[in-house]
Amino acid sequence: MLSISHRGKLMPASPIRKLVPYAETAKSKGIKIYHLNIGQPDIETPKEILDAVRNSNFKVLEYSHSAGNESYRKKLVEYYQSVNITVDYQDIIITTGGSEAILFGFMSCLDAGDEVIIPEPFYANYNGFAVAAGVVVKPITSSIETGFALPPIEEFEKVITDKTKAIVICNPNNPTGYLYRKDEMAVLKTIVQKHNLYLFSDEAYREFCYEGEHFSAMQLTGAEENMVMMDTISKRYSACGARIGALVTKNKKVIETVLKFAQARLSPPTFGQIIGEAAIDLPGGYFERTKAEYKLRRNLIVERLNNIPGVFCPQPGGAFYAMASLPIDDADKFCQWLLESFSYKNATVMLAPASGFYGTEGLGKKEVRLAYVLNAESINKAMDCLEKALEIYPGRKS
Amino acid sequence: MLSISHRGKLMPASPIRKLVPYAETAKSKGIKIYHLNIGQPDIETPKEILDAVRNSNFKVLEYSHSAGNESYRKKLVEYYQSVNITVDYQDIIITTGGSEAILFGFMSCLDAGDEVIIPEPFYANYNGFAVAAGVVVKPITSSIETGFALPPIEEFEKVITDKTKAIVICNPNNPTGYLYRKDEMAVLKTIVQKHNLYLFSDEAYREFCYEGEHFSAMQLTGAEENMVMMDTISKRYSACGARIGALVTKNKKVIETVLKFAQARLSPPTFGQIIGEAAIDLPGGYFERTKAEYKLRRNLIVERLNNIPGVFCPQPGGAFYAMASLPIDDADKFCQWLLESFSYKNATVMLAPASGFYGTEGLGKKEVRLAYVLNAESINKAMDCLEKALEIYPGRKS
Repeated sequence: MLSISHRGKLMPASPIRKLVPYAETAKSKGIKIYHLNIGQPDIETPKEILDAVRNSNFKVLEYSHSAGNESYRKKLVEYYQSVNITVDYQDIIITTGGSEAILFGFMSCLDAGDEVIIPEPFYANYNGFAVAAGVVVKPITSSIETGFALPPIEEFEKVITDKTKAIVICNPNNPTGYLYRKDEMAVLKTIVQKHNLYLFSDEAYREFCYEGEHFSAMQLTGAEENMVMMDTISKRYSACGARIGALVTKNKKVIETVLKFAQARLSPPTFGQIIGEAAIDLPGGYFERTKAEYKLRRNLIVERLNNIPGVFCPQPGGAFYAMASLPIDDADKFCQWLLESFSYKNATVMLAPASGFYGTEGLGKKEVRLAYVLNAESINKAMDCLEKALEIYPGRKS
Repeated sequence: MLSISHRGKLMPASPIRKLVPYAETAKSKGIKIYHLNIGQPDIETPKEILDAVRNSNFKVLEYSHSAGNESYRKKLVEYYQSVNITVDYQDIIITTGGSEAILFGFMSCLDAGDEVIIPEPFYANYNGFAVAAGVVVKPITSSIETGFALPPIEEFEKVITDKTKAIVICNPNNPTGYLYRKDEMAVLKTIVQKHNLYLFSDEAYREFCYEGEHFSAMQLTGAEENMVMMDTISKRYSACGARIGALVTKNKKVIETVLKFAQARLSPPTFGQIIGEAAIDLPGGYFERTKAEYKLRRNLIVERLNNIPGVFCPQPGGAFYAMASLPIDDADKFCQWLLESFSYKNATVMLAPASGFYGTEGLGKKEVRLAYVLNAESINKAMDCLEKALEIYPGRKS
């Protein structure tokens, strides 16, 4: 009989998507939904970079080099230098979104049956890329009580086996917003050196750190061969639809191997590369303004959350996510109830239940992720909804 | 020790790429190179579709739906209807190039160790996607003497095992230009039905058929569940850099599974989808003009080739490739020699040795693929070079 592949069956569906039908029903009833459930920024894409595409002037929309346009890779070297990451353009392969950088990294360094350690909660799509590559995710738990700090070194040691090939981190973190400190990065360096592991460092949100400075895996000197950075322009410039990312490593064997995967798919998108290259010449002040806006929203949402009785939200140091624990029975049920059975002033709020971000079954049941990708006025209204909802939710627990 | 994955080592490097250093050296000596080695069309991308991007007017470059914009998927239904393929928009998932459609098809339907049968010579990157998915390619040989017609049904039966899950065809074919006839497609239907196999049909060059009419796998009635079509706008509209393709099937389980892989990578490129959607409203005459131009080139290159002593080139029915056998010892050596040691009127020609398109070691040693993606004047000059080169090539065999 015609059958779906085993990995196709294992492939997780988007954990956020399952709530979409309830949201659509609510909308059809005329209820306004505040979307704090997805990481699609509302910040406008800088006009200058969209204009670079609109003013483009070629006659044939050709394939680019499989590794990406050399001019763009050279420009990226300048950008990385500006954030104190020193790389050569030959250390960079342009990918179709950060997604492809993760997939290529997994495919090039890991085989079916190999294990990767990921502090949980983690970006849910790492599961998808792991299934595609046949790789086993071994979660170690970071907890809301410590603000999702890196688990202690012993927790890593406990799960390391001879099949362990890599550690994956996202810094600053999606979904927690946690910013790994320099000393935590040093711990990771110690572990990967001791056990000969790769450190896959997803730095999609690098530019959005609100107090501490970002410390990149690429700045860990002496362990260059172990470091593979995954990057993207999606969040940095509100350019998610460009589908442009990069895999960056000084490990020549990894670059050579990733290039072979890149050649098989021919090239990354041309227009997206124009966007990415133009972004590096954005006039000063763009990141400062954008960061200031996100920081204002972060301060607002964290304050509003912690003012709701029974809610706890640790201060996230970066990205544009906050994780909160709620006084409820089950966040999946609560998020569905918000869409299906609740409204306040004809509005409700859509949140991401945290269970989808944990690898360990049963964790995160009372937690939700909130993406502060709406302006302050909308965040206030969304928090009004959440506050009222928690007062009357039938599954409330104290 | 840090190691590259086994599949990363198995991953083939681009067979065409190995000649690039020789081409660069020739260029640095001031030698003009006629590139007949790659399938990058020189035909201008229709201005109307580039203008659709240039006139786009949104503020935020957002993710699209993981399956692609609904408006584009619905437009594609109209396009397919125009070529007598009847599908619903829910049978279509927009992919990042035809490449991703092939990868998603393999990942969703095949597991590591499964076998796919592919008539050789075949598009070399199928090897890459097979390695990524851990799938074993079982080639069956089509030969230049029959113009690369579909091998007889017995040849398929010989290699079918209980691990065989699919047959892959490219129609019209890259690299041979062969256009499968309706009766050959019926044979394929018989085989896939009898053995419960998928038929993956790569129809990238559908619009470029010069005599016979294209008969799609999607037109094989009664075996809808077996058919998975891979498509792309790259060649159709000279829009390779858009990176937009599609996977099309009426098999609901396959679509659901492919969607999960699509969700993990979030979305296909936004600008490319604008290109694809605008293309469907291109004013009449675009395909006629483009096809006429390619047909003129095909007639010219085939005639020129067959007029060279010792050269044989069967008439290709579609795509923009011709395969020729040459009176030489080894096409890899010859193609390198053309770049390294030969010039005529300060020019030379770059060809693709056919060995990279065969799965069976040792086949195609005297064959080359020629992509007629240059205008008639350039093709004539390239053929002048080839003719002179064959007169003096030290490895000439009669």
